Amino acid sequence: MRGKDSMPISPGPFTGRTIAGLAQDLREGRTTATELVTLALDAATKLDPQLNAFVTVDHDGALAAARLADHELAAGTDRGPLHGVPVGVKDLIDVAGLPATMGSRHYAGHVPAADAECVTRLRRAGAIIVGKTTTHEFAYGPTGDRSANGPSRNPHDPARMTGGSSGGSAAAVAAGMVPLALGTDTGGSVRIPAALCGIAGFKPAYGAIPADGVFPLSRTLDHVGVLAAAEGDCLPAYRALATAQLREDLPAARVAWLDLTGLDPAGLIQGDQRVTDLVRNASGAQDDVRLPAEVVAALRETYLVIQSCEAAAVHASRLARAPELYDPELLERLRVAAELPGWRYVQAMDGRARLAAAVGRLFERHDVIALPTVPITAPPLLRPEPEPDGEPGAWRMAVRATLLSMTNLWNVVGLPALTVPAGMVDGLPVGLQLVCRPGRELLLFEAAARHRTRTVGPSPPGRPWCSH
Amino acid sequence: MRGKDSMPISPGPFTGRTIAGLAQDLREGRTTATELVTLALDAATKLDPQLNAFVTVDHDGALAAARLADHELAAGTDRGPLHGVPVGVKDLIDVAGLPATMGSRHYAGHVPAADAECVTRLRRAGAIIVGKTTTHEFAYGPTGDRSANGPSRNPHDPARMTGGSSGGSAAAVAAGMVPLALGTDTGGSVRIPAALCGIAGFKPAYGAIPADGVFPLSRTLDHVGVLAAAEGDCLPAYRALATAQLREDLPAARVAWLDLTGLDPAGLIQGDQRVTDLVRNASGAQDDVRLPAEVVAALRETYLVIQSCEAAAVHASRLARAPELYDPELLERLRVAAELPGWRYVQAMDGRARLAAAVGRLFERHDVIALPTVPITAPPLLRPEPEPDGEPGAWRMAVRATLLSMTNLWNVVGLPALTVPAGMVDGLPVGLQLVCRPGRELLLFEAAARHRTRTVGPSPPGRPWCSH
Repeated sequence: MRGKDSMPISPGPFTGRTIAGLAQDLREGRTTATELVTLALDAATKLDPQLNAFVTVDHDGALAAARLADHELAAGTDRGPLHGVPVGVKDLIDVAGLPATMGSRHYAGHVPAADAECVTRLRRAGAIIVGKTTTHEFAYGPTGDRSANGPSRNPHDPARMTGGSSGGSAAAVAAGMVPLALGTDTGGSVRIPAALCGIAGFKPAYGAIPADGVFPLSRTLDHVGVLAAAEGDCLPAYRALATAQLREDLPAARVAWLDLTGLDPAGLIQGDQRVTDLVRNASGAQDDVRLPAEVVAALRETYLVIQSCEAAAVHASRLARAPELYDPELLERLRVAAELPGWRYVQAMDGRARLAAAVGRLFERHDVIALPTVPITAPPLLRPEPEPDGEPGAWRMAVRATLLSMTNLWNVVGLPALTVPAGMVDGLPVGLQLVCRPGRELLLFEAAARHRTRTVGPSPPGRPWCSH
Repeated sequence: MRGKDSMPISPGPFTGRTIAGLAQDLREGRTTATELVTLALDAATKLDPQLNAFVTVDHDGALAAARLADHELAAGTDRGPLHGVPVGVKDLIDVAGLPATMGSRHYAGHVPAADAECVTRLRRAGAIIVGKTTTHEFAYGPTGDRSANGPSRNPHDPARMTGGSSGGSAAAVAAGMVPLALGTDTGGSVRIPAALCGIAGFKPAYGAIPADGVFPLSRTLDHVGVLAAAEGDCLPAYRALATAQLREDLPAARVAWLDLTGLDPAGLIQGDQRVTDLVRNASGAQDDVRLPAEVVAALRETYLVIQSCEAAAVHASRLARAPELYDPELLERLRVAAELPGWRYVQAMDGRARLAAAVGRLFERHDVIALPTVPITAPPLLRPEPEPDGEPGAWRMAVRATLLSMTNLWNVVGLPALTVPAGMVDGLPVGLQLVCRPGRELLLFEAAARHRTRTVGPSPPGRPWCSH
């Protein structure tokens, strides 16, 4: 049963519009950057009370930047496909002069003086930053609901999680408030909310987009990524942000399905078989590949240990000084993380080369590996009562483990991974995840475009999150 | 009072002979490699019962290699200054076909099939491996007395420690059993025993000699180094072992004294002021430099955390499987190390760049920094009774902290460091430590040679360890 809170949100001004289409409209005089930014600002005003996608909206700064973008275009300075495009930036990424709360009371009132490198690159490409989007506190969680700013809410059902930690970015794009947003992804924080909100999200190869000016969660695993309605909108953003050029001369992608079922000895992961079946059918993969159970277990252990120790190092002094400023769940998780012994971290770091080699064997005969992004749909924000499993906190622990179960593997080995909408289960979106080796990124986008043609026809869906 | 055990050992066949002199004798027909190796083997037979410098002596292999070296020289193949020179190799370094015990019962009967890279390079330079030298168990200790093979003993007083962990290498060279030995140095394990035994020891820059085939203690801090009677004998060995060429075009070294007094808030370090005064006078340094107290504290903390976590990672499975095979002191230390939290390791690793910059400022106006190698003379093997400090184990803990207090700083930042004999206190040797930046190694050797000319005249001492 849906209450008032669980009705899907009306489409926003960018729903059904592509970045390429906006660029064409801008250049052919059918719109201006000022108009696009005004649409985004108005949408934020109208829709955000239900979604909590934005922490800060920069009306004045965005309008000033839009006017400049319009002047530039009029004067013949064309910065490319992002010129004049409104963008949301995760509130973990520094934008000069705008508050950066990191989703935490620890950073209440903090205003960085300089742009993060990825923001500098966005601006250089002509994009207009309209505001900062809600992040799970310090990006330390895949649910998107623990934040000093309150939970971001899923446009498909505001009583449900966006997923996280880039939940605000995903909600803002999914609701059509902006056509593009920046996120970060340490274990799935771009891809999980993109999948649960029914949009596309791209986590590039490790280091492909510099993380300078981004608050760290775990430096070894942190990636900057992009979220947009469809893969075709992620691509120009990635081109503007990435250090490396893309290889263009690649043959068509050979796609294999990666079956991870049965590889959860701890029994924490509670996937929905309907989700996996839908994604598998949508993937168009003809072959199956497998990862040895011990490799999957080692990838998960390596993720847990590296992320925990590095996060505990980042937070050690705050944890000692003002623990009461953390959300209680985060505080508990950080305290557990701070207990992990160093030798396990050393072993985890040392083991990565072996894991990369094992994962590399997936690509011996295929270019792209397909699997679900998340094996469930968006969970409810409120814990079911009574809690399904007896132990307090067990439901949330299982939700976190399930949300991360198919994305964090690729952070350990730093591989590019893209999620695209694959359909709906129970009226909620489901994501197809595509993974490749660094240098083969265009194959992901090509495979995603083929998938779209196969499943929803050649044009992007009008209301991707509202098909029911 | 000296007992029978505490009389200095009679000089061995290589006492007072330099590698350059041996090389000349070999080429001018006054000796052969076979004769030199026979001298070494006989000395091992005669002296080792008192010193325990060797774990394994390879009579047959060494003599065969010596005959080959003689044939080569006779046939006109000259491999350079180490050709035909007998060498001892620390029992932590793989020599194909010889047992490598790592000083531990865990490796009883272990015989590696391949040479470590540093051994390959020694052989390529014509050196003859006569045997494996006693190491502190798994190189995890600066005292040299905890080993499955028993303690190595100081040639100046066999009732005293050699220092460690390369104690057997130092004893074998100091007693004149071999003119050269290989060691490893994670926190001072080449320099400490060299200083306490009255010889020279060189720990190169991090990575300058490959550590492949060397059992790890702490990969971030482990260095392969060389021990010989004087710095002039370390140099040709280093040239044969190092990956990089030495810069030859450097002006005379400007030497500064580094004063570390008062920088031990924990009060564990119990130096002997007479040692420091002697070394300072011997150094010839005209200026003083200081390191900020917080930098010294951070270097020591960083050393402790990195070494502990990495050692615990190396030993984790053995520690779980067969803890009873460890020496009890080592077992206790490993168990403490295994408890250190990972976030401290992450912070320690992250902090190294800042520490390297702070240490780098020492070299703003000087090329070489001088300080004691060890601020005490060789401690007795038996704990004084009653134990000076009440707590059990406190004496050994203070000895370890004091032995390491002036050497391990340089492992954290990977700087080249040389120890040379600086004189005697109470009839026991004292070492002068010289430290430089990578690429300036020849300045260390030059400064050491100047020091020798100043203190003991132009030729190497006849019986360096026997001046009383």
